Amino acid sequence: MEPKKKVVLAFSGGLDTSFAVKYLSEDCGYEVYTAIANTGGFSQSELKAIEERAIALGAKEHATLDITQEYYDKSIKYMIFGNVLRNGTYPISVSSERIFQAIAIIEYAKKIGAHCVAHGSTSAGNDQIRFDLTFEILAPEIEIITPTRDMNLTRDYEINYLKEHGYVADFTKLEYSINKGLWGTSIGGKETLHSDQTLPEEAYPTQMTATDDARLTIDFKQGQIEAVNGEYFADKVAAIQKIEELVAPYALGRDMHVGDTIIGIKGRVGFEAGAPMVILGAHKVLEKHTLTKWQQYWKDQLGTWYGMFLHEAQYLEPVMRDIERFLESSQRNVTGRVIVDLKPYHFVVVGVDSDFDLMKTDFGEYGELSKAWTADDVKGFTKILGNQMKIYHNVQMRNGKEREA
Amino acid sequence: MEPKKKVVLAFSGGLDTSFAVKYLSEDCGYEVYTAIANTGGFSQSELKAIEERAIALGAKEHATLDITQEYYDKSIKYMIFGNVLRNGTYPISVSSERIFQAIAIIEYAKKIGAHCVAHGSTSAGNDQIRFDLTFEILAPEIEIITPTRDMNLTRDYEINYLKEHGYVADFTKLEYSINKGLWGTSIGGKETLHSDQTLPEEAYPTQMTATDDARLTIDFKQGQIEAVNGEYFADKVAAIQKIEELVAPYALGRDMHVGDTIIGIKGRVGFEAGAPMVILGAHKVLEKHTLTKWQQYWKDQLGTWYGMFLHEAQYLEPVMRDIERFLESSQRNVTGRVIVDLKPYHFVVVGVDSDFDLMKTDFGEYGELSKAWTADDVKGFTKILGNQMKIYHNVQMRNGKEREA
Amino acid sequence: MEPKKKVVLAFSGGLDTSFAVKYLSEDCGYEVYTAIANTGGFSQSELKAIEERAIALGAKEHATLDITQEYYDKSIKYMIFGNVLRNGTYPISVSSERIFQAIAIIEYAKKIGAHCVAHGSTSAGNDQIRFDLTFEILAPEIEIITPTRDMNLTRDYEINYLKEHGYVADFTKLEYSINKGLWGTSIGGKETLHSDQTLPEEAYPTQMTATDDARLTIDFKQGQIEAVNGEYFADKVAAIQKIEELVAPYALGRDMHVGDTIIGIKGRVGFEAGAPMVILGAHKVLEKHTLTKWQQYWKDQLGTWYGMFLHEAQYLEPVMRDIERFLESSQRNVTGRVIVDLKPYHFVVVGVDSDFDLMKTDFGEYGELSKAWTADDVKGFTKILGNQMKIYHNVQMRNGKEREA
Amino acid sequence: MEPKKKVVLAFSGGLDTSFAVKYLSEDCGYEVYTAIANTGGFSQSELKAIEERAIALGAKEHATLDITQEYYDKSIKYMIFGNVLRNGTYPISVSSERIFQAIAIIEYAKKIGAHCVAHGSTSAGNDQIRFDLTFEILAPEIEIITPTRDMNLTRDYEINYLKEHGYVADFTKLEYSINKGLWGTSIGGKETLHSDQTLPEEAYPTQMTATDDARLTIDFKQGQIEAVNGEYFADKVAAIQKIEELVAPYALGRDMHVGDTIIGIKGRVGFEAGAPMVILGAHKVLEKHTLTKWQQYWKDQLGTWYGMFLHEAQYLEPVMRDIERFLESSQRNVTGRVIVDLKPYHFVVVGVDSDFDLMKTDFGEYGELSKAWTADDVKGFTKILGNQMKIYHNVQMRNGKEREA
Repeated sequence: MEPKKKVVLAFSGGLDTSFAVKYLSEDCGYEVYTAIANTGGFSQSELKAIEERAIALGAKEHATLDITQEYYDKSIKYMIFGNVLRNGTYPISVSSERIFQAIAIIEYAKKIGAHCVAHGSTSAGNDQIRFDLTFEILAPEIEIITPTRDMNLTRDYEINYLKEHGYVADFTKLEYSINKGLWGTSIGGKETLHSDQTLPEEAYPTQMTATDDARLTIDFKQGQIEAVNGEYFADKVAAIQKIEELVAPYALGRDMHVGDTIIGIKGRVGFEAGAPMVILGAHKVLEKHTLTKWQQYWKDQLGTWYGMFLHEAQYLEPVMRDIERFLESSQRNVTGRVIVDLKPYHFVVVGVDSDFDLMKTDFGEYGELSKAWTADDVKGFTKILGNQMKIYHNVQMRNGKEREA
Repeated sequence: MEPKKKVVLAFSGGLDTSFAVKYLSEDCGYEVYTAIANTGGFSQSELKAIEERAIALGAKEHATLDITQEYYDKSIKYMIFGNVLRNGTYPISVSSERIFQAIAIIEYAKKIGAHCVAHGSTSAGNDQIRFDLTFEILAPEIEIITPTRDMNLTRDYEINYLKEHGYVADFTKLEYSINKGLWGTSIGGKETLHSDQTLPEEAYPTQMTATDDARLTIDFKQGQIEAVNGEYFADKVAAIQKIEELVAPYALGRDMHVGDTIIGIKGRVGFEAGAPMVILGAHKVLEKHTLTKWQQYWKDQLGTWYGMFLHEAQYLEPVMRDIERFLESSQRNVTGRVIVDLKPYHFVVVGVDSDFDLMKTDFGEYGELSKAWTADDVKGFTKILGNQMKIYHNVQMRNGKEREA
Repeated sequence: MEPKKKVVLAFSGGLDTSFAVKYLSEDCGYEVYTAIANTGGFSQSELKAIEERAIALGAKEHATLDITQEYYDKSIKYMIFGNVLRNGTYPISVSSERIFQAIAIIEYAKKIGAHCVAHGSTSAGNDQIRFDLTFEILAPEIEIITPTRDMNLTRDYEINYLKEHGYVADFTKLEYSINKGLWGTSIGGKETLHSDQTLPEEAYPTQMTATDDARLTIDFKQGQIEAVNGEYFADKVAAIQKIEELVAPYALGRDMHVGDTIIGIKGRVGFEAGAPMVILGAHKVLEKHTLTKWQQYWKDQLGTWYGMFLHEAQYLEPVMRDIERFLESSQRNVTGRVIVDLKPYHFVVVGVDSDFDLMKTDFGEYGELSKAWTADDVKGFTKILGNQMKIYHNVQMRNGKEREA
Repeated sequence: MEPKKKVVLAFSGGLDTSFAVKYLSEDCGYEVYTAIANTGGFSQSELKAIEERAIALGAKEHATLDITQEYYDKSIKYMIFGNVLRNGTYPISVSSERIFQAIAIIEYAKKIGAHCVAHGSTSAGNDQIRFDLTFEILAPEIEIITPTRDMNLTRDYEINYLKEHGYVADFTKLEYSINKGLWGTSIGGKETLHSDQTLPEEAYPTQMTATDDARLTIDFKQGQIEAVNGEYFADKVAAIQKIEELVAPYALGRDMHVGDTIIGIKGRVGFEAGAPMVILGAHKVLEKHTLTKWQQYWKDQLGTWYGMFLHEAQYLEPVMRDIERFLESSQRNVTGRVIVDLKPYHFVVVGVDSDFDLMKTDFGEYGELSKAWTADDVKGFTKILGNQMKIYHNVQMRNGKEREA
């Protein structure tokens, strides 16, 4: 008898992947290896429960792949460097994780010599593309299996199937689907399906419980968090978690995002991303003090593209490595302390204290008489700065044209 | 005897321009025509007081040039179309006005056949460039005079000079210098000079007085405001003022901006721009529903540039006209109602209701099984989408290179 | 008996579409309406021969849709405005046509109430996407049929099938496949399949026959060709054809292009595009004289994108309409005569004569002492221009850092 | 008696700087240290003659600073990486050198403890800004002296002054002013002052002398030249010189450029840059084979900006360092041989042979049936690719709008 084929299943413990364990092992005769890649969204007890469910469903083995550090090193770090907010709004909380989960799963599949890899995505969203694309690029020889998508299965069908195969659990659909990660939580619910509604207060995972305003300081060193409220953090993941702990009671970083999915339709999602929004807000102000105008200009453009490609499953496109080098280089002076005031539902970036502050120079101050230039210098500057426009208008007039604008 | 030379002085009623009236008429022997270009920041009584002061100081004539409508038509409109926020923060409240004031002043000078034009700017800021550049382009034949800048005058000197010439008024420097306009108010004070401080609550012109949350609706038609809370506004300036009135009690749109001045140094300013921030926020969400991904992408880039050039006195650069045509075209479907919830110190864009909403289609919905495509379609899409990355990784492997990233 | 279903077939007279006529009518029982959309690449006699072949093969009706003018108005015009060369090399000779052919075919199908539309593309190239995408967008209700692609047919199979069904013709594959249009001719052959080879001289449709150098003048009016060698052309298509006639003997505009196809693989093609390259070369130099630096900068970016989307079947993406408005606006002063010297295998743009030439001004000349500014003005300009870099280096030094670069 | 003040004079041996030696030493009482920074444009005998003239004119010491290698390492290398051609035309032959000459001069001035630094530029061109800006940034404490500019001196005046001070030499203005460097030669003459004229054949320094076509191969390794015609070059400067020697007889790389100067006016210049144009042409084609579409897209944008800033004296702007990191990263696979055919007045890039060629893959070939995807895959791809456009058109129709375009 031929040995069973090995399949690695990206397992979240939800209905679709629970169904997949049973279906792939019992109906299809695979040896199912479940795996979950944690990017910081799961607690130890949650991971334990997921493992138990996998085994109970018939997985041969279950692996918990902790890639939180890698996720920070290869993604969050650059999203901070690039001030990445999709459409100026959304910190790409979930989509950036998915890629690294896909990479971890496929590397694991290669390591254990799996013939196939499976995931529970449907045909309606972005995640299927993130999984498929990453799998196909990194392991073209491994077949991809997606039972829920391929058979267009309904929740009822899957629950029923599991019951018939002896597995009963509470798979009631929650009113709000929550996807928690290190870089924020996304929230779906009935309101996100309608353009004219927003999530109610109670749909957000964290409630406003703060009673007093508080001051927070974040020290950055070359674009990375160095200290929080003066306490040094070698572990940047821990630093983000510390900030999350401090800002969560203020219910910060909540918003809705309607965005363009990889498949071309508009998708709408709520999110709560207190720590990301405070960190990005602080980092950006520090950059406004320490970078030149053109550094900011180009960082903006490349950061926007980086976020778009990260979101759209194109993390492995080689231009991303080129952009990372640019962003890294741009951070060489992004060092200093940022002061933030936390208030209910909003925060205020008070200011920065940095040795690289381009305002704090021996040179000259805005609005003050300067020793660095004279009135005549500015007049000369203005004259020359205007040359091309003057010539243009001179030519317009000579041609009998009216003033433009 | 030769007739006196005419000079048109951009007159704000402040110390520098008050000095200039006296100085130009008495010391220099000019016939001084004062003029103020109102872009919506002055009330009738303020304008009246300014006129009286001009005459009292010895101006031959004083003109009040109302250019609020022109300012909207030629600038605010496009800033809304382009979602213009400098560095993602500042709605360019003051700098955009200055250009139109400069244009109005120089056109007036040409109309009355003035030989010279004067303004009160010092050599330390952006405004001198906005005035000079505009004057030089539009009237190269008219000489520019700037007494305060050229003689590096101090406040004390000017106050003393006025006293000696028989004009006494209260020119005490206010703790916070306020510059109010239709598109927001800028605030300077001791805190704006230090990178690590923010303005205190009381420095902002409008205080939080709202007691209840409120809902606001703004209807846009092809990018322009059509109605506020259901009330139609043919006059877009009035619509902005109405929104300001409704949002002001919530103390919205406050922030600090540190930016790159035209002269290359960093400048820091506080601002309060309730109506602009709410309008831009609402408009942007409507665009996220009605524009395609690439329309938004390019609007972002061109809008950023438009804002930069407007800020940097380059409004008359012909590329601005080209960008305006792009922005205008992009608004053809930006029509619909936006719902906004006003809360203390922040607001929430609830959602939109638009016939052009690309989410509200017969076509397919994110996260729902779609009739418009099958699982196999997405699989095919993903395969082809990944082709170039697959080829790239194939080539990498063939060359014995490690996986990138 | 049910009436036969109508299918409109995009018919070129080549093997794939000849097969399709027979196959769709005889095997599938369709009523086949053949149609060819001429964008200027076919002569009257060629069109006649194509029509005869269609009828001989069993087409119910054949339509010749002349869309040369529309192709100019909606595509070539903007490619000239935008100086569109893919990767700085290829004037998008064939791909730009295909979209307009697809539009014409599908509009014809809608007009005659066809149930289906067919084309002869295989699964290996870009054209299938240009046809499918355009058809699906403009007529989602019409089914698309592609026999050669769907059945993976070989040339031998198709020739044989035609023979068996009583149609014999010379379908010998030419050594070089030629695709001629108004905006250039593309050439495929064995050399284009190998990265290290180029087409031999004889593969190009036009041979070098000129014996003397010649001078050519092209007058542009707002970016469009107005006259050729002084002769006025109201008909811009005729103007392009006239220029082609004049430059062809010099064997101009030949090159190879390796580009990124829509499906992600690299594709290589030879092309000969004498008139396009001369027109674009002349137009660009005229713009260098008449546009400002920033107009050229942004035109470059938007023109590049426009070309990319045109090439990649995204002509109907609404951002294209926005870009067209920008490009149109940018041409308002692109008026004047350009002088070109034609030589064997290359041409020289001698210069321009334009009332809108920003060099020909009363203002100042490069390299000459200027009345428009003084030495001190430039010194002041330079001082202020350097401010931010000076501050940056000042901050670097204060922090004990080495000079960068 | 106070010791004389030291001035370092950037000395080219031309009239303006010859005058300056005399004037600064005799009229102004400076101790004049002349220095020339060679970026590869001068032969040893030319350098010797320049030194002798400096001493003859009264220079205390003369220094020849050879910075050819630095110029390659810090500028030409990145210009090749970025395919830098200003406005798609001009390889920035002269302007890129000037910055490195300015850096070398000011570093020398600091080294010998000079109080002042002088150059011979007039107020009419770009060079004054390149010198002043670099000097001011790197040595704000050193005073800048520019006699010819400040006193608006004419050639006659300077020649006469020299004669009166006992120095006679042939300073006849040449019909064509030639500026030769490693990266090309610029040519000015009466034709470059008129928009409608081009340089005559004889104005170009190198004449067409080749009798036969020739084949040239250039091997690149990570973007840098590795071998020429199979001969390995560790010294990249020598490689460029070798290529120049091989291509010069074909009179390649000649053109006129009309560009936007730093001071805002249009400037026109002829140039001959055989080696640069052949190297850039070869490098670009290699990139088309080895880089992905988006790498090329972003390289284009950043390369354009890099060239603009290099040209405009902004080499020391920190964003340039960020761009260099991007460009460097992008070259990791730009390795392979490029084959070029040299012909009279033009060259043909035949093709490339590279292990990193994305065309030469196990994967699939353009225009050939592929094992990597099926007809259905492309159909699925096209369907999804079209989603947003389909939705947009669906919404248009639902709103009773006409088809756009």
